[in-house]
Amino acid sequence: MNNKELHVLSTGRQPVERLVETFEEIHPYLTALHIREKEKTAREIYQLVEQLRTKNVPLSKIVINDRVDVAQVMRVQGTHLAYHSLPIDQVKEHFPQLRVGCSVHSLEEALRAQAQGADYVTFGHIFETQSKPGVNPRGLEQLRTITASVTIPVIGIGGIQPSHVQSVVEAGADGIAVMSGILEAENPLEMVKEYNSRLVDRKEGFHA
Amino acid sequence: MNNKELHVLSTGRQPVERLVETFEEIHPYLTALHIREKEKTAREIYQLVEQLRTKNVPLSKIVINDRVDVAQVMRVQGTHLAYHSLPIDQVKEHFPQLRVGCSVHSLEEALRAQAQGADYVTFGHIFETQSKPGVNPRGLEQLRTITASVTIPVIGIGGIQPSHVQSVVEAGADGIAVMSGILEAENPLEMVKEYNSRLVDRKEGFHA
Repeated sequence: MNNKELHVLSTGRQPVERLVETFEEIHPYLTALHIREKEKTAREIYQLVEQLRTKNVPLSKIVINDRVDVAQVMRVQGTHLAYHSLPIDQVKEHFPQLRVGCSVHSLEEALRAQAQGADYVTFGHIFETQSKPGVNPRGLEQLRTITASVTIPVIGIGGIQPSHVQSVVEAGADGIAVMSGILEAENPLEMVKEYNSRLVDRKEGFHA
Repeated sequence: MNNKELHVLSTGRQPVERLVETFEEIHPYLTALHIREKEKTAREIYQLVEQLRTKNVPLSKIVINDRVDVAQVMRVQGTHLAYHSLPIDQVKEHFPQLRVGCSVHSLEEALRAQAQGADYVTFGHIFETQSKPGVNPRGLEQLRTITASVTIPVIGIGGIQPSHVQSVVEAGADGIAVMSGILEAENPLEMVKEYNSRLVDRKEGFHA
């Protein structure tokens, strides 16, 4: 393992059975498994976490997007908030045991998230990605500005291929988050190991 | 006022400004104002409650549908759960200060909700309603069975016109819930007073 974070986000496009199987297989290599299933009801997300628990996926690795209530009752690691979610400071005040992350897209948003008490931010998208077609990536330069400006961990996201990991970490990121690049890969476990080895390499000074 | 409950549910179809204005006007006559805005994000519901608070609508009268987290951070009266929501027992365990209601559609569901700790149930729809076109109403007979079988309050819902109030209360209901019949009325305040007077009449034995 390594001290850089590796997050995987679900895509909302996979059947529950497939998602559970994959999470069961890859969790040992990950910091956080994000359940980001915007079309699912609270009950469906709750049941998904229940299934993960029965498969011995550690609750301490599970992060639930937006539904703070489900995160609370399932006692998972935390919740990840977006602009349409509850305000960070409200969530930190009322759910102090949850690790609260927040998606940001600019320096201003990153500073605001930090001021409101976010435990970390994800910043992106850094590279071109099929998840955001036609939207220009924000790039490594802005990532560097943000990592130099905030004290909380910054996780890079968006189109990060294994070959990009070194540059993202060198821009000061504390880790990376990957969606389809892992979960929709032909062999998710192999891809997780591939990303992970690049993060480990960094720690061991391979590219230093 | 009276000891039978009068709930109003938002329809999800009205602009926020209109909803806030109407709630501001009618809340003195109501037990509970349900924010039932399924298409709205957590942030939008949060902001709606904030607006209601600035208009001095008591938080103790506000009930938030499904989003237990928003109910928790806003310290409102409670939350109302449906089948797609978190399980009642989980919500009661982790959010003990919220009054938790639940929509039920059969005796079996009512008994289960009670066993799981629901503070009350809404049962319906009792009469034909435009909210459930083509679905046969469940009627007063089933309402009577349910009110005779559970000890928690049962609130009748679905197509209840002022002229129906007496029959619903005589079937053992502890109150009624109304959606479009109040909020989409030409004069919501007048309609609330109309419903309310029928409930008051009951208490005073007018129809006894």
